[in-house]
Amino acid sequence: MAKDIFESSDAIRTAQPLRYAQSVTLAGPIHLESGGTLPGVTVAFETYGKLNAAGNNAILICHAISGDSHVARHNAEDDPGWWDILVGPGKPVDTNRFFVICPNLLGGCRGTTGPYSLNPASGKPYGADFPTITIGDMVEVQRRLLNYLGIGQLLAVIGGSVGGHQTLTWATRHPERLRGAVVMASSPRLTSQALAFDVVGRNAIRRDPFFHGGQYYDQPHGPAVGLALARMIGHITYLSPEAMNQKFEGDRLHPREEAIEFEKTFSVGSYLGHQGTKFVERFDANSYLTLSFAMDLFDLGGTPEHLAASLRPARCRWLVQSFTSDWLFPPSQSRDIVNALISNRAAVSYCEIKSACGHDAFLLPDDFDRYGEMVRAFINNLAPAPTVPGVEKEELFGTTSIFHERRLDYDRIVELIPPAASVLDLGCGSGRLLARLKLQNHRQLVGVELDEQKILGALRRDLNVIHADLNEGLRAFADKQFDCVVLSQTLPAVKDVAGVIAEMLRVGKTGIVSFSNLAFHKLRRILAEEGRAPRVYGWLKDNWYDTADIRFLSIRDFEDFCREKKFKIQRRIALNTEAGIEVAEEANRDADLAIFVLSRAGVNGES
Amino acid sequence: MAKDIFESSDAIRTAQPLRYAQSVTLAGPIHLESGGTLPGVTVAFETYGKLNAAGNNAILICHAISGDSHVARHNAEDDPGWWDILVGPGKPVDTNRFFVICPNLLGGCRGTTGPYSLNPASGKPYGADFPTITIGDMVEVQRRLLNYLGIGQLLAVIGGSVGGHQTLTWATRHPERLRGAVVMASSPRLTSQALAFDVVGRNAIRRDPFFHGGQYYDQPHGPAVGLALARMIGHITYLSPEAMNQKFEGDRLHPREEAIEFEKTFSVGSYLGHQGTKFVERFDANSYLTLSFAMDLFDLGGTPEHLAASLRPARCRWLVQSFTSDWLFPPSQSRDIVNALISNRAAVSYCEIKSACGHDAFLLPDDFDRYGEMVRAFINNLAPAPTVPGVEKEELFGTTSIFHERRLDYDRIVELIPPAASVLDLGCGSGRLLARLKLQNHRQLVGVELDEQKILGALRRDLNVIHADLNEGLRAFADKQFDCVVLSQTLPAVKDVAGVIAEMLRVGKTGIVSFSNLAFHKLRRILAEEGRAPRVYGWLKDNWYDTADIRFLSIRDFEDFCREKKFKIQRRIALNTEAGIEVAEEANRDADLAIFVLSRAGVNGES
Repeated sequence: MAKDIFESSDAIRTAQPLRYAQSVTLAGPIHLESGGTLPGVTVAFETYGKLNAAGNNAILICHAISGDSHVARHNAEDDPGWWDILVGPGKPVDTNRFFVICPNLLGGCRGTTGPYSLNPASGKPYGADFPTITIGDMVEVQRRLLNYLGIGQLLAVIGGSVGGHQTLTWATRHPERLRGAVVMASSPRLTSQALAFDVVGRNAIRRDPFFHGGQYYDQPHGPAVGLALARMIGHITYLSPEAMNQKFEGDRLHPREEAIEFEKTFSVGSYLGHQGTKFVERFDANSYLTLSFAMDLFDLGGTPEHLAASLRPARCRWLVQSFTSDWLFPPSQSRDIVNALISNRAAVSYCEIKSACGHDAFLLPDDFDRYGEMVRAFINNLAPAPTVPGVEKEELFGTTSIFHERRLDYDRIVELIPPAASVLDLGCGSGRLLARLKLQNHRQLVGVELDEQKILGALRRDLNVIHADLNEGLRAFADKQFDCVVLSQTLPAVKDVAGVIAEMLRVGKTGIVSFSNLAFHKLRRILAEEGRAPRVYGWLKDNWYDTADIRFLSIRDFEDFCREKKFKIQRRIALNTEAGIEVAEEANRDADLAIFVLSRAGVNGES
Repeated sequence: MAKDIFESSDAIRTAQPLRYAQSVTLAGPIHLESGGTLPGVTVAFETYGKLNAAGNNAILICHAISGDSHVARHNAEDDPGWWDILVGPGKPVDTNRFFVICPNLLGGCRGTTGPYSLNPASGKPYGADFPTITIGDMVEVQRRLLNYLGIGQLLAVIGGSVGGHQTLTWATRHPERLRGAVVMASSPRLTSQALAFDVVGRNAIRRDPFFHGGQYYDQPHGPAVGLALARMIGHITYLSPEAMNQKFEGDRLHPREEAIEFEKTFSVGSYLGHQGTKFVERFDANSYLTLSFAMDLFDLGGTPEHLAASLRPARCRWLVQSFTSDWLFPPSQSRDIVNALISNRAAVSYCEIKSACGHDAFLLPDDFDRYGEMVRAFINNLAPAPTVPGVEKEELFGTTSIFHERRLDYDRIVELIPPAASVLDLGCGSGRLLARLKLQNHRQLVGVELDEQKILGALRRDLNVIHADLNEGLRAFADKQFDCVVLSQTLPAVKDVAGVIAEMLRVGKTGIVSFSNLAFHKLRRILAEEGRAPRVYGWLKDNWYDTADIRFLSIRDFEDFCREKKFKIQRRIALNTEAGIEVAEEANRDADLAIFVLSRAGVNGES
């Protein structure tokens, strides 16, 4: 039996308090959701920046399972914080502008009351007598801390992973206490697979002979091996398979020489052994059991209806981010949250960040140019006085036709939308159309877009934008949720045209579709006289072989299609954008651009 | 400390031999790749069916880490075998036709020599003294068994997971001993993530205080908890996340009542605890360490070059299958094997089976209609006298034009391909063109196809077919590997036309491309006179809104494109398929179908 891992595990019992952590003992007991009570709870926390006179610049950061209150450095000489890339002077969570609070979790082992704390009833550490706690209990302790600090409404709560669970709980339990919520790499509840890993980790600890039923504090040794095994399993789940290959394939059979008592034939083994061994130096096994069980009990619902009901009390604006390679809290779970918020008509933006980093992506610099800048834009627009330029008026009025790099159709579409209408823009890009409508005081404006950079652009314009593929449907939106749904110049990218238009007319009272007309006389002539596929300057500039997004249709084709599918054409605007005129007669011959206002047949919608 | 799991673990020491297993002690020692020697190795094995007089109907089945020799029932009263769906009378591996042998692995614990066997040197079980063994050592023991049984050449070796590692080793070490290899859910070596799970599992066993350095056989208890934990981790990796959700989300918090000593708040936890507890009844911890380490050491190379070199000695035909939701041995690893075989010009078929079942898919009935039937077709065509009908001549000669459901272009393409030429058919469907060429004694015929059912069809025709997306490139094929590469009526599904044609002309001396001509006078007239996008009967029958695979081009467009991209047009055949004639003049106006023979500019290729 190796000695060093047990020596390491002793360190947690003599750990010094974190250097800049303050602590406060809350007045009165905490009544736990499990039915128990914790008297005299102490909370350790760190703060950054200053609370302004109005008290409206405070941001709460919630940490994940193995984190602590040290979210960022306090100065150049300080130890690194676990989220230095996000929090600090000039960072997206700018401590020059905002007052940031980060408490250690209830049940943790870095200053806040947890299983290693003295149980006043016995005068000994709680150990196995520490009660089952929930994410709700953690949030209750945080709420009491904010009361103690005199903070009323938070500008935002921000958290990744289990920090996201706390953020979701804040938004639903205390809707009046926050303006914005940033939920990263999180979920409504754990997948069965994620639960399974936690179960194995907890069993490794509980079935360690040195666990002593959780009362190991006065024993020579604690369950260091069990805790190290649990941490190793955790580490595998935090990394994506591709990140692991990148890290370990180069020197697969040349492990670093680590002072560990674990198998080290393979470099990935020595890494995991190192992570496990280091973890027992700074973490208490009972805390790990407590926090991991609280995470596993978190459950906003397993069906869309249940989840929507759980989220219904929330009133804040939302930024939800997931990471493509995160298999522990996969993007589909963030989409479930977003879909529930959409069905609740909440103000939500969502992006699935393309990343190779797995669950840990939200802590790493690799994809920060997108996820970090989105947080910056979102927080900035929540702030009482946004400092990052939002909407540049001039850039909104560029227009496009097949003849020019102008979007003449936007001018007409804006005119077609009645005052104060709610609008969904499918393929919204960076939100130029929506930003124009916003300037005209339209309400409930939502964009759908696939490109991350364009989503960032729309967030900077203070718009609600959802990362989604039109071709996957608009299921999350309710019937008749919008006055108007726009699909401008996006038909070539649509796979199931009839399906998408039917969805537009389900979620919107009217639909506006604009497209280029193949039967425009100049295009006909190209095929008829030159024997070539029409290829024109302007936006339709791709060669036939350069794009997969080609779909040729004429005004007549579209009208036939609407008749066939029983979509009612309320209005048709045919434009000759070269001449800059509206075409009344022979539109199929003389117009190069068409805008149709549609509704469901038999519905007396208004445009 | 619970008692029952230890009682369970004692069972392995008193386990009865498998009912139908025979065993033989090999003459002479086995010299191991690690340098050690094992004297007097015993092999337990089961056989099914009868070896025919020619001795050419034998099939070897290789089992995975926790399997044994009992691959299938011997009769209706027998216990179920682990691969009853695949092996038995009338099954894809038909024991009415084939003689099937399944041995227990070297290092296992079901009859073949392993760590629990008596070490003749000490008269006690080997325990920790059992040497490190490799997949190569396992195969050497199997080879000696076949020699003992008097079997020369095997019809096939079949294995999934680690069984696939053995199959790969058979094909490369003893190329003269097998005609075919079926490799399912396998890999050239483990990913770092898969290694990581094994490392944690082994450490759970080794660091179990009851492991006693591996010499636990004469102790009151063995490392039952460690082995159970390792098995729980394994079980998570064998299932896909979606399969786990399906299994456990319905009764997430209502675990089955199992007699286990593991946490059972969650239903997934009680399942894993049950699996862990049951496993210790039938498996020896030292065997698990031995076999899992052998699997981890298996390594055919981490680069395409290294992998191709490792596979170069092989001479057999191959069927490689992966499963989309297998994240332990992901499809990309099977593609690496297939790509290496292709670059070696081996006869290989590959299919990535769409499955929700994860790594275990190859053992389950869910996707058997495809993977099982593919094995049946492959084995049948290897057999001395195939019994399943292969090629139906009549069905090969149907043809298509834009006017009829006929493939008139095939007739011309077949004429264009010189005798005995090697041919790659991109988008080969179920292999109608290739089967016609096969009847004419062409050599090295390979198809590329995306549809599983069509791949099965091509396998039934005894063709080599690779499951791949044209748009991902033809990297696996070598320069000038084929005399001719065909892309018939497939342009609309191609995203990067110039890229795919460039690849065709890299891997083939000539390329043959056929497509419909947009500038055919009847189509021009539709746009010019009706103002509609051309839509004709025949194969081009989709409405403009019904397909995303529309790409309009004329003969002139294609000629312009070839000039622009510097593809040399060796020959052009323009057909009016309605009249059934070849069009010589005004082809762009009077032909509806064009066939081009291309080569790289400056290359004096021959069509």
